[in-house]
Amino acid sequence: MTISTQSVNITRFSASRSQPQDDLLSVEEPLEISIRYGLNLEIKNLSVTMRTPGHDEELALGFLLSEGIITNYEQVIGAVQEDVNRVSVILHEDTPFDPTQFERHIYTTSSCGICAKSSIEAVRVESTLPEIIQHWTIEAPTLYRLPELLRERQADFASTGGLHAAALFTQKGELLSLREDVGRHNALDKLIGHALQTGTYPLRTQVLLLSGRASFELIQKAALAGISFVAAVGAPSTLAVQLAKEMKLVLIGFLRDTRFNVYSGVERIAS
Amino acid sequence: MTISTQSVNITRFSASRSQPQDDLLSVEEPLEISIRYGLNLEIKNLSVTMRTPGHDEELALGFLLSEGIITNYEQVIGAVQEDVNRVSVILHEDTPFDPTQFERHIYTTSSCGICAKSSIEAVRVESTLPEIIQHWTIEAPTLYRLPELLRERQADFASTGGLHAAALFTQKGELLSLREDVGRHNALDKLIGHALQTGTYPLRTQVLLLSGRASFELIQKAALAGISFVAAVGAPSTLAVQLAKEMKLVLIGFLRDTRFNVYSGVERIAS
Repeated sequence: MTISTQSVNITRFSASRSQPQDDLLSVEEPLEISIRYGLNLEIKNLSVTMRTPGHDEELALGFLLSEGIITNYEQVIGAVQEDVNRVSVILHEDTPFDPTQFERHIYTTSSCGICAKSSIEAVRVESTLPEIIQHWTIEAPTLYRLPELLRERQADFASTGGLHAAALFTQKGELLSLREDVGRHNALDKLIGHALQTGTYPLRTQVLLLSGRASFELIQKAALAGISFVAAVGAPSTLAVQLAKEMKLVLIGFLRDTRFNVYSGVERIAS
Repeated sequence: MTISTQSVNITRFSASRSQPQDDLLSVEEPLEISIRYGLNLEIKNLSVTMRTPGHDEELALGFLLSEGIITNYEQVIGAVQEDVNRVSVILHEDTPFDPTQFERHIYTTSSCGICAKSSIEAVRVESTLPEIIQHWTIEAPTLYRLPELLRERQADFASTGGLHAAALFTQKGELLSLREDVGRHNALDKLIGHALQTGTYPLRTQVLLLSGRASFELIQKAALAGISFVAAVGAPSTLAVQLAKEMKLVLIGFLRDTRFNVYSGVERIAS
């Protein structure tokens, strides 16, 4: 057992018999993410997310980046675990922060029209990153190997079957970092927070692998972190594909064994 | 193709060759859910959720029930598709609604302490349902059949691989209704909204089957809809199990072929 798994007593049914047994579950607990800002370190609660405990500071940092509140680690003094389910990120006093931003955000979204195009436009506006267009390529056989490398390292999933993973690889297919969580957006936020803390952000030269499906939200987070190459074991959605094309990201889906589908950026697969 | 799928051009890589192909994707688009309330039908925007189009009125109704804004369909005049990505639910003028509830909700959560116990407590307080304790049982062989019945009817998943499903069954294993969505919480909200519209709510005598994992949020929605029997094809989380035990729900996980695990309420499995 780790901080992210917990044992429970269950009854296992199999064909015609049942028996009591122990089972490992993925831990899910609420995490409150707050920000401390300005001269007096005023506090603003941003979000309560259901997550798997562990790497909470990373999660908070990645969340702030995804929300456009910070654009680099220099804007931050640090992330503090206030108690077991609360994390605060302390902004440098000269980092601009408008505490009403979160209320306004919903308003802006609705007033600019609710459609796929406006969702994509919002990402483009939010993004203060320089162009993430990249030209490096990866060979198909390198990609084929990634899911197996992910599974080998995904220790908690193996024991619980209940965790999503996000991992970064080099262009040669070497695993750099991996995070797991009951929420796939949390796993990616943790990975991005880790990159912020370790100075590897923005992630222009890494490959992001997602253990499940690729939704709009995940591609949005990837784009805002400078990631230009995303591969998912599962299916992408229409809006994920549209955003990837718009942002010039490679998007690969159904990466399994020796096959995958390329939804965007096929010119960056070397054959 | 349906309203919930869309065709795109992709390149399929397989072993050493690649070829252009058509692929069906699950549609993901934002939906704005609003409420109209009071004598003057004032409007309050509640949420923007990424969902698969189709059954949007059901989604809005189920969402309102899950958020504790309504507790029965009599409080509602109806749900209106204002445009392709906007739905409003019109409340009866005498249905109490506090437009500041959503802002306050976050505050309440944080002031009462952030932990598993407080999350569970919040569901109990929110729930204005009578006790959902039920005593009816199901035989294991009936449960074994459910995932196959789900798959047979899950048309869009078969074509895209990208949709979550939630379905209701009778105690004899007959499929009553099924909804699909890129978001598993949306699929369940649609199912609950459908039950509200068709007068089958609360869902005390039905079995809920989830195509994926069982998180806290899904068990919370189930409990608020009066559901007392939940089976998931995937893994539950710790908090999902705790909530199920607290609310006296049956919770089954890893329901596949002829086996499953019982995490809560084993006395209601007849053998």
